[in-house]
Amino acid sequence: MAELQIYSPRFIADQPGRNGRTVLVAGGAGFIGSNLVARLLSDGDRVICVDNLETGRQENIAEFLDNPRFAFFLHDVIEPFDIECPVDRIYNLACPGSPPKYQRDPVHTFKTSVIGGLNLLELAQKKDARILQSSTSEVYGDPDISPQNEAYWGFVNTVGPRACYDEGKRGAETLFHEMHEREGVDTRIARIFNTYGPNMDPEDGRVISNFIVQALTGNDLTVYGDGSQTRSFCYITDMLDGLIALMETEDCHGSIDDPVNLGNPGEFTVCDLAEIVLEMTGSECDISYRDLPQDDPRQRRPDITRAGRLLGWAPKVPLREGLVATIEYFRDELGRQQRLSGQVA
Amino acid sequence: MAELQIYSPRFIADQPGRNGRTVLVAGGAGFIGSNLVARLLSDGDRVICVDNLETGRQENIAEFLDNPRFAFFLHDVIEPFDIECPVDRIYNLACPGSPPKYQRDPVHTFKTSVIGGLNLLELAQKKDARILQSSTSEVYGDPDISPQNEAYWGFVNTVGPRACYDEGKRGAETLFHEMHEREGVDTRIARIFNTYGPNMDPEDGRVISNFIVQALTGNDLTVYGDGSQTRSFCYITDMLDGLIALMETEDCHGSIDDPVNLGNPGEFTVCDLAEIVLEMTGSECDISYRDLPQDDPRQRRPDITRAGRLLGWAPKVPLREGLVATIEYFRDELGRQQRLSGQVA
Repeated sequence: MAELQIYSPRFIADQPGRNGRTVLVAGGAGFIGSNLVARLLSDGDRVICVDNLETGRQENIAEFLDNPRFAFFLHDVIEPFDIECPVDRIYNLACPGSPPKYQRDPVHTFKTSVIGGLNLLELAQKKDARILQSSTSEVYGDPDISPQNEAYWGFVNTVGPRACYDEGKRGAETLFHEMHEREGVDTRIARIFNTYGPNMDPEDGRVISNFIVQALTGNDLTVYGDGSQTRSFCYITDMLDGLIALMETEDCHGSIDDPVNLGNPGEFTVCDLAEIVLEMTGSECDISYRDLPQDDPRQRRPDITRAGRLLGWAPKVPLREGLVATIEYFRDELGRQQRLSGQVA
Repeated sequence: MAELQIYSPRFIADQPGRNGRTVLVAGGAGFIGSNLVARLLSDGDRVICVDNLETGRQENIAEFLDNPRFAFFLHDVIEPFDIECPVDRIYNLACPGSPPKYQRDPVHTFKTSVIGGLNLLELAQKKDARILQSSTSEVYGDPDISPQNEAYWGFVNTVGPRACYDEGKRGAETLFHEMHEREGVDTRIARIFNTYGPNMDPEDGRVISNFIVQALTGNDLTVYGDGSQTRSFCYITDMLDGLIALMETEDCHGSIDDPVNLGNPGEFTVCDLAEIVLEMTGSECDISYRDLPQDDPRQRRPDITRAGRLLGWAPKVPLREGLVATIEYFRDELGRQQRLSGQVA
């Protein structure tokens, strides 16, 4: 069992949150994780963040480090660990999410989902905590149907370049399902579709961050294939509402442990998105086309009927509105990085 | 790292096989494993069998225990382990294979495939051994196409009753693929379709053993659903030829590490099989119908074009011929068990 090193000296170990609760966020320095940490802290929770900073970023959690209700542990969830204080909720957001990042070390990516998931499930069991797994629309692979609902089993290549992520996340769903069925662990599974907003890594490698960074830095926008493949984009505040609703909804119908899609059903082609980003950033860049990578899904759009019925949830922020804040964030972030590299040079 | 306990006192640790080779068979006390051990010993290999005897059976390896070229280690592959002597080949056949067995402890079944697979891959890397993964037709789930070829990605429920086995095996394929791609481990993946023959567990729970045992003990043959679902059945000697050919074929085309179907494409409905078993055992039993279990595949038939092309392999033993030896084995085995229980009573 690993001994964790704490990097937030003002944390008070024997005092739960204002609301009496302690929430652990694995992957809390990542894009969705750090936004969730901010929300939970402002809701009064005490928050324990566990992250190995492989793709999570210190700057995403810098503002919380002096908060006595916030603890940061630098730790890789593939190693078992324990936390001294009680834990009421665990959000598992620990896994690189973009292809260039998760393909850097595919075996480690797979282990992060599967062995990391197991370690967190065992912690949840020990602490009697409710645990939410961030699964993904990638479990649907290259789907035969659109939109995808949760009853669709998916179509995934086990030996393709995306398999380490897709099969890792699929296997984690199986583990969450069985730990609920056999061990009675109180589990939730969110299948998260494309999400965007502040705190994304400019080098994340996914389409929204790529386009905005390219537009802001005066580079042509790279479209893979002919750009007719579709994606849906959910703004981060909507996603947080969905994740928290899924975590906090009690199981009235006996099926809240089954997967729930969270995403925005608005469907855009990649070319549509490129045009919108060019227009909103006022960029005069062009679009440059490259070959479609192997196993790139043709379409991806959530059916969110189940989330609506179980959680009363639906996304509210239209793409153009969410892009305003996102573009502003990237402008600041790129400026900050430029100043930093200026200082170094 | 676990210390292994050896149960075969005549084993000579510093002397390889007649042919200079040492082969490790994980799951070597199981049905396919023990038949493979017998074949390898008669081919002159030294054989190390690692099995936790969860579903493998001591009686399957009893005859080898006095052979100085055979070592038996009682060990669960989900715990990392090391072997002192050099190892040239590793066959990973360690996982319960029938639904009633693998559903007894689904989390352990999943760990056996995924964590067991990782441990054996790491051993192969350390020993510079070639390693073959026994994957399964179950990775195709409930397929949309028939016959299934290796390019078909499969259709599998991540949160169904078969998921611990199907997703565990799918995840293991991903790990074998990536350990080959990234770490250069010399891997093979066999997708094994239904196989039958001597050394099957009478309580295995799969259709051939169920039918024969029911017919021989004077019970009606249980058919789930209307019996129109199809299966293909490969005799054990054909399967061994295929596994060894896949293990020993050199990679001329750069794709021998990709999955290869091994099975008999002859297709029978479950009702056909019941009639054949009733006829061949001379049983006067009837057929009784029960509800189809959730996620039971409707059809399962291998396309073995790739195995033919890469390995020059095709099965030779027709169903009725293989059933003669199999029925004889079950007759002996049930007699033996009856004598044993008589002795106990």
